[in-house]
Amino acid sequence: MASGAGRGDDEFALIARLFAPLSEGDLGLNLKDDVGFVPGTDKTSCVTSDMIVAGVHFLPDDPADLIARKLVRVNISDIAAKGARATGVLLSAAFSASRGPDWIETFAHGLANDLTYYGVPLIGGDTVRTPGPDSFSLTAFGQVTGRHLVKRQGAVPGDGLYVTGTIGDAGLGLKLLRDELGTVPLGRRQPLVGRYHLPEPRHLFGAGLATVASASLDVSDGLIADAGHLAEASAVGLDISFDRVPLSTSAARLVKGDPSLHQLLLGMGDDFEILFTAPANSASRLIELSGDTDTPVTRIGEVVEDACHTVRVLDSAGAPLEVSQPGYTHF
Amino acid sequence: MASGAGRGDDEFALIARLFAPLSEGDLGLNLKDDVGFVPGTDKTSCVTSDMIVAGVHFLPDDPADLIARKLVRVNISDIAAKGARATGVLLSAAFSASRGPDWIETFAHGLANDLTYYGVPLIGGDTVRTPGPDSFSLTAFGQVTGRHLVKRQGAVPGDGLYVTGTIGDAGLGLKLLRDELGTVPLGRRQPLVGRYHLPEPRHLFGAGLATVASASLDVSDGLIADAGHLAEASAVGLDISFDRVPLSTSAARLVKGDPSLHQLLLGMGDDFEILFTAPANSASRLIELSGDTDTPVTRIGEVVEDACHTVRVLDSAGAPLEVSQPGYTHF
Repeated sequence: MASGAGRGDDEFALIARLFAPLSEGDLGLNLKDDVGFVPGTDKTSCVTSDMIVAGVHFLPDDPADLIARKLVRVNISDIAAKGARATGVLLSAAFSASRGPDWIETFAHGLANDLTYYGVPLIGGDTVRTPGPDSFSLTAFGQVTGRHLVKRQGAVPGDGLYVTGTIGDAGLGLKLLRDELGTVPLGRRQPLVGRYHLPEPRHLFGAGLATVASASLDVSDGLIADAGHLAEASAVGLDISFDRVPLSTSAARLVKGDPSLHQLLLGMGDDFEILFTAPANSASRLIELSGDTDTPVTRIGEVVEDACHTVRVLDSAGAPLEVSQPGYTHF
Repeated sequence: MASGAGRGDDEFALIARLFAPLSEGDLGLNLKDDVGFVPGTDKTSCVTSDMIVAGVHFLPDDPADLIARKLVRVNISDIAAKGARATGVLLSAAFSASRGPDWIETFAHGLANDLTYYGVPLIGGDTVRTPGPDSFSLTAFGQVTGRHLVKRQGAVPGDGLYVTGTIGDAGLGLKLLRDELGTVPLGRRQPLVGRYHLPEPRHLFGAGLATVASASLDVSDGLIADAGHLAEASAVGLDISFDRVPLSTSAARLVKGDPSLHQLLLGMGDDFEILFTAPANSASRLIELSGDTDTPVTRIGEVVEDACHTVRVLDSAGAPLEVSQPGYTHF
């Protein structure tokens, strides 16, 4: 109930107050995680839905095939971050009245491309027309690969805090598409815009996640915001070392030219990396999994005791930084 | 992939051509039925998605709680018509920017009301804002109650064709809301408008359907259009006796005043009754199920051999009628 398309604290509060009581029993995890359990599967299968709207979650001029592929990947990322493997999807598509058959066909080709790549069948869905912007909802199923789902809840003080890949690339890509960063050479621009259009979910790493992680989620709302969700669910604090947050070469260059961007990267979202915690005794398995799946993993901080469940970003001297723009706000 | 929100032949063709190839394996039933099978459940669980958009599938001024309840019921109807019992739902909701917290709260109360009534938990979903009309997608799970799902495919020549309840009430209700039927006294108006706002899915009857039916689907696009889908999937013809199609007292009165409405009822849709076929030897079980679940059932025709899979509507002399407006068209 809380993933993919970022949102702010007010919306979380609204969802919690209105919808969480409808999640009776434990299939829905009180709507406090990224997935729920599929009824009748004894908690071996999980399911997630993400909705994206033109002009809100993607640009109306984005290529149709990339919109479809991003939709698939955002959901694959949710499943992967729970230690599960995607097994099928349903697509509900409301195409804008302005989209002709060619656009829809290109969308379908993008969908086909990525469903084939990830080995996931289309099981059903619905297709309608809308007088408004294109709106797509994808429901994805996952098979839990370990003994149990890796939840947001489960981190304990003393665990390390880790993230896969690099943070901020997609957010910078969006800023470039919006012409908010001045002139940037094409060679530096492309990797960032590419990350925005087409995230690379960590599905291989995710399939092994249950053997190493105590808690996990994917970074969609922004590193700080999503760390906050993990801290809240696990009832712990998280200390993040600012200098350890991994940046790509392209992002690091932009930050060098404009240091004010550095902190913003932690709140931009759309990263679709896995943020997780792991106990010290899983370090060797973690290194092995990282190597086997060719997935860079960086330890960016620690799980600490904190009754307020705060996420602190610390400078190199260990002093807390003030970080603005913690995440995307919908409501 | 093909239910709830009505659509025309062009859209069916588009879906079939573009999306059906993505339904590899048999989980998705080639997207030719109202549901697919949930991965990892050995075909004991099914799943369906329906998407509704303000101004297309409901009126923007419809009460918020009724919109939510109709959304639940449309999906419960899909599940019931497959001989299954609903076990959980996910909701993807894109609320229009104009909807304040009160409207969303009323929507949530309607959702709560019907999920409680049907005993179905909310397992997850997504909530976003849209600059366009409200758009909602509900994914519903069902547990197959008999030995197998009741598909659109399975009718054989000699089977009877049956429908639950009455046909045309919701369509007339919509016409009343649109002021297309002149002045109608409130007492006659309300049952019809009520059927449009709040369908009564046949969930109790559906739970026993597998013991009697050879093929089935719910009537959402219109009686003739949905009969066509069953005929196509089962590779048979269907002969419907026009005079046997059951009308409510309210509908019959309107038809008496304007006989031109009579044929239109067969194409109006939004009935959410179950249209099914059954062999002669299940007649006694059928009567029992109808009585046990307090569900009126009418035999409206026969399954016949027909290489063209035609649906014919016959007058009292057995002569085919020309029926216009076979169903709602989206594309």
